[in-house]
Amino acid sequence: MATVESLATGQRSLGDTRIGYPLWPPLTSGCPETSSTEIAYPVDVDYDYDRIPDGPLTPDRFPALLPPLAAEGLGEGGTPLVELEPGVYLKDESRNPTWSHKDRLNRCTVSAAVGVGAPGVVVASSGNHGASAAAYAARNGLPCVVITGPAPAPQVVTFLRAYGAVVLPVPWERRWPVMRRIADRGGLHPVSSTTVTHTGHPFGPEGYKTIAYEIHQEIGTPTAVFLPTGYGELLYGVWKGFAELERLGLADRVPRMIACEPAAAAPLVEALRSGVPAARVDVGPTAAYSIVSQVSGYRGVLAVRSSGGRALAVDDGQLRSAQTELARSGLWVELSGAAGLAGLRGGGPLDGPVVCVTTSSGFKDPIGSSAPLPAMSGEWSDVSRQMKAAGIDV
Amino acid sequence: MATVESLATGQRSLGDTRIGYPLWPPLTSGCPETSSTEIAYPVDVDYDYDRIPDGPLTPDRFPALLPPLAAEGLGEGGTPLVELEPGVYLKDESRNPTWSHKDRLNRCTVSAAVGVGAPGVVVASSGNHGASAAAYAARNGLPCVVITGPAPAPQVVTFLRAYGAVVLPVPWERRWPVMRRIADRGGLHPVSSTTVTHTGHPFGPEGYKTIAYEIHQEIGTPTAVFLPTGYGELLYGVWKGFAELERLGLADRVPRMIACEPAAAAPLVEALRSGVPAARVDVGPTAAYSIVSQVSGYRGVLAVRSSGGRALAVDDGQLRSAQTELARSGLWVELSGAAGLAGLRGGGPLDGPVVCVTTSSGFKDPIGSSAPLPAMSGEWSDVSRQMKAAGIDV
Repeated sequence: MATVESLATGQRSLGDTRIGYPLWPPLTSGCPETSSTEIAYPVDVDYDYDRIPDGPLTPDRFPALLPPLAAEGLGEGGTPLVELEPGVYLKDESRNPTWSHKDRLNRCTVSAAVGVGAPGVVVASSGNHGASAAAYAARNGLPCVVITGPAPAPQVVTFLRAYGAVVLPVPWERRWPVMRRIADRGGLHPVSSTTVTHTGHPFGPEGYKTIAYEIHQEIGTPTAVFLPTGYGELLYGVWKGFAELERLGLADRVPRMIACEPAAAAPLVEALRSGVPAARVDVGPTAAYSIVSQVSGYRGVLAVRSSGGRALAVDDGQLRSAQTELARSGLWVELSGAAGLAGLRGGGPLDGPVVCVTTSSGFKDPIGSSAPLPAMSGEWSDVSRQMKAAGIDV
Repeated sequence: MATVESLATGQRSLGDTRIGYPLWPPLTSGCPETSSTEIAYPVDVDYDYDRIPDGPLTPDRFPALLPPLAAEGLGEGGTPLVELEPGVYLKDESRNPTWSHKDRLNRCTVSAAVGVGAPGVVVASSGNHGASAAAYAARNGLPCVVITGPAPAPQVVTFLRAYGAVVLPVPWERRWPVMRRIADRGGLHPVSSTTVTHTGHPFGPEGYKTIAYEIHQEIGTPTAVFLPTGYGELLYGVWKGFAELERLGLADRVPRMIACEPAAAAPLVEALRSGVPAARVDVGPTAAYSIVSQVSGYRGVLAVRSSGGRALAVDDGQLRSAQTELARSGLWVELSGAAGLAGLRGGGPLDGPVVCVTTSSGFKDPIGSSAPLPAMSGEWSDVSRQMKAAGIDV
């Protein structure tokens, strides 16, 4: 449990910011007053910023700007910022308890489940989100149901079941109805989105604000932050964290938020282009399974617009190049997790220090079929030949 | 590069501590004067402890007590201590750059390679050590050759090759001759052991000392530390770190070091039982591939004896129970990495705070064949039945 008290005061509609709600219960289906059958607006958490003491926002003080942390944690956050080259930093989120950024979110969403006394949590996920939710549920003694697609990869199933999650492979078209039913009638707390456009859990993006606090503590405010983007929760949370630092007088500006989506489906690019709060697009083939998304959410639009940022579409070739560049620098990230660097290399702004958030470990991708290993006798002539073939002269 | 200067002064034989050597070059084949064809003695790094300033040993000051860090790092260390239950802490080393404790070691060994101007590094490894060496070599622009067994698992090959390593699958009996030849004649710097009993790299265990510093900073000196043990480098490094804290007047004792070896081959248990500096044992079947070892090294004997500790053998059933217990608490560790908790649960000392070091991520194990997923229509009756079968009543 956190020793510093949360200063969260309530929830506010992002569809109409004049509309406020109490902090409890968390509105897991977005803002009821402004949402329609076409577009759902999320709610956001408000804080009593006037009560934040002066001085640097050190990690021991983060809980004041988070929802009440009723759930026990697993040591999430505090990830390193690794300098890739002068002025280009990587925020390596694979160093979290389940080796992705999702742990920061699920500390907050499972805290909401504990806070409302839910008998368990339910999540629709293709991997990282589900495993992270399952880990935090396990840590707090709650069952977790993960609704996957009809044929989840074996390593995803192993990962989810390790934490004791119940894995339900459901046909795609039944995914959201099942999710909503388990939440509405079963009473399990939903920690992923249940709405027509993405709203997600109101407490979720709050957990990502600490990424901004940590970056700021190490290097101040960068010029831009490049982020792998699916539904835009990470994007919004990091933006909100920087916006709070500015509001508290600890920073004089926010960085440009650069959302990096798979080109196979880039709903935020489309929403920004067409000027709508959220868009729905066709989904093409991509290996970036963790961030490919048919639909966006209004949070992404807010973060990009408010920061003077951009949304970029990166194709699988760019993702693979970025993934290889990172691994050859010592950091092996999931293909989806390389989207930030892919965006930077694809022509993002380069002036001043920039941060690429690398969200997850390379172990999250399916094991590819790599070139076969040579059959080796182990005789020296044999070893020497293999090394020469690899360019190492001995 | 570290900003605090290393206070390392030289190398000292662990076979006869009156025998000293200069710091450079690192003696990667152990102490030449005391080693024989039967037993090899490692060397240890000496420091000018009198020049360590008074006051707490905070992370910014760690480099003074490490070998010169000529190699760029990847943000290794600084891992969280997670409280499993009152008085039982887990030091989660899966939060390192390649998701195992080996990164602390390889920051130091690859620094040695950079320091001597080696054209590359070579390592014999079944997984974690090799991938970590490959990552640090990549980070520092050096090629890395990894000598594996004849049929490495696909996920290990993918992991190693991601960092650009050259993977040479060599028959078991040719492994050490090939390793020595690549080191001696090829000039590649060996970052794993090349000797008849284990000596390893003299700079390697130094990197593990920071685990002790970090634990001490958070909870003081625990009663005991339980560690997965293969060659005993982690065991020795953590012990040495605590011994240094005592020497510097920052702690009044060292914890009991409890080495936890797979029962299928427990050479340190045998060495301590028979009173020899290192033992060779038969190897039975075990899934703890990362720590099963035919031969031990003298460092393990020193750490256990000097701390009043013990070596325990844990079988695969105990390892699986500990792995499940950890995962159901939210931390999914490699089977080998659960050996510390397995040792504690098997009847280790329980008085006072104890720390179990969990060395690595569950992703490092081969993907097991788990129970098949149910075929689901996604109709509610179907979902409801599956959830009831899992004990969740909706």
